Amino acid sequence: MQQALQIKQLTVIGVGLIGGSIARALKDGGVCEKVVGYGRNAKNLDRALELGVIDAIDMDVSSAVKDADVVVIAAPLGAMADLFRKINGYLKPGAVITDVGSVKGRVVGQARENLKDCLSTFVPGHPIAGSEQSGVDASHPELFKGRNIILTPLQETDAIALAKIRCLWEAVGANVFEMEPDHHDQVLAATSHLPHLLAYTLINTLLKVETSEEIFRFAAGGFQDFTRIASSDPVMWRDICLANQHAIIEMLENFEGDIKRLSQLIRLSDGDALLELFSSAKKARDQHIVKDEA
Amino acid sequence: MQQALQIKQLTVIGVGLIGGSIARALKDGGVCEKVVGYGRNAKNLDRALELGVIDAIDMDVSSAVKDADVVVIAAPLGAMADLFRKINGYLKPGAVITDVGSVKGRVVGQARENLKDCLSTFVPGHPIAGSEQSGVDASHPELFKGRNIILTPLQETDAIALAKIRCLWEAVGANVFEMEPDHHDQVLAATSHLPHLLAYTLINTLLKVETSEEIFRFAAGGFQDFTRIASSDPVMWRDICLANQHAIIEMLENFEGDIKRLSQLIRLSDGDALLELFSSAKKARDQHIVKDEA
Repeated sequence: MQQALQIKQLTVIGVGLIGGSIARALKDGGVCEKVVGYGRNAKNLDRALELGVIDAIDMDVSSAVKDADVVVIAAPLGAMADLFRKINGYLKPGAVITDVGSVKGRVVGQARENLKDCLSTFVPGHPIAGSEQSGVDASHPELFKGRNIILTPLQETDAIALAKIRCLWEAVGANVFEMEPDHHDQVLAATSHLPHLLAYTLINTLLKVETSEEIFRFAAGGFQDFTRIASSDPVMWRDICLANQHAIIEMLENFEGDIKRLSQLIRLSDGDALLELFSSAKKARDQHIVKDEA
Repeated sequence: MQQALQIKQLTVIGVGLIGGSIARALKDGGVCEKVVGYGRNAKNLDRALELGVIDAIDMDVSSAVKDADVVVIAAPLGAMADLFRKINGYLKPGAVITDVGSVKGRVVGQARENLKDCLSTFVPGHPIAGSEQSGVDASHPELFKGRNIILTPLQETDAIALAKIRCLWEAVGANVFEMEPDHHDQVLAATSHLPHLLAYTLINTLLKVETSEEIFRFAAGGFQDFTRIASSDPVMWRDICLANQHAIIEMLENFEGDIKRLSQLIRLSDGDALLELFSSAKKARDQHIVKDEA
């Protein structure tokens, strides 16, 4: 028999697109009574309060978490180690912590080092949801509906803590998966980090062309879709690059090799090989992706 | 005083997404009385007739163009030279020809060689519109509304022929620009050809990863947008690569160099340089592109 999750106090650290959407979704679902928000930007927290995303602000993170049943850390990757240090020792017994960081190996390492008193109740997670938008104004309660969320529990992770965080994500409509942290980072390097870096780089490559003004003017719909993710938060993507160095460099090098081979085929006017490459890509995309768009 | 364009007979060579949409738009706008369709695929032409996109089928291209006031060649780039040869000498005096090929230098060269009798009434063009879909079923009369169309007239091009084709595109709601053929090909290599090749290559790079099934399962919305253009017609993109070799290879090499530099910055953990790169890309995209999406 599954026990329904009931949260008296949820504390959200970092009330942006993701943190704000979790708060909204849990409140809308009647799962959570009170949400306390912590963040470094007082104006953003005021806005979250005004929007009803959170019920209270606490500008001291140790105090913000002390009465929480569940703490969601939705802060930038670069801030995680420091936050772990600051909340360590302040949580009440039975409180559960999760995060939503896009890279998991680094976060797990930082948790091991800095979250000593409550490592077993920390359940690392990553919702594969988001957009090129950011900030609490973009948050909405449906953000996770039908989305995948990957949890990367540690050997030390308490089974009840894991079950609670699983319930939390199911309550907001997400499909929950479990993975090893490093495997998560390899998968995301391919499916998310590489495409984002290609989109950013494409824009920068075009900016260096002499006639870049004209180029952007004649960009068609395909270009706009393709580069949408280049409007994502630069700080977040710097942090992802620094936190998932190894897997990202490997994917970039694979891609670079494939681009070199493509140039060579074009140089050789090898129409058959080009057709084969484009056909296999189209077939794979139509098969794997298009069905999700319906 | 601008004279309204009136076309008694339009002949469309290649009744797919673009050719079909031109026919629909001109008929809807009352610009054109009768549309004759030619193509190599009889089933597709029957479908076009059934949909009312064309009014008659002629499976002989020389005969299909002989009574036309305007001929639109919307065939694959690889078929152009042969089509020019076949229609040369068969057009009536005053008839105007245009094409919609995505590469203009090669098409102009082929026209010079094969369209001797009517080179001065050939107005090369390229509508920056389309989608990853293809075929007459995807055609619609609004496809060109608000889109840019680039004409690349030759020194020999007759001023009246140019004016007619300009009117034709304005009649379907497009914004008309003029450019040198080679300059067009450089601009499109940057804004269209490079992104398409990156999207195709990304899919192929991921297909080679051992866990590619899993990777596609965890692809988020950003990935779907990013790779949408990898569902485009492979034959068309093979032809574009072969027809715009030089400009495409140059852009691929620029991009490859930028990817190499990015890898290096990640390897060096140079957070400041990464932040600068991502910020400049985001700024440029938000500035140039986002406004068009509103």
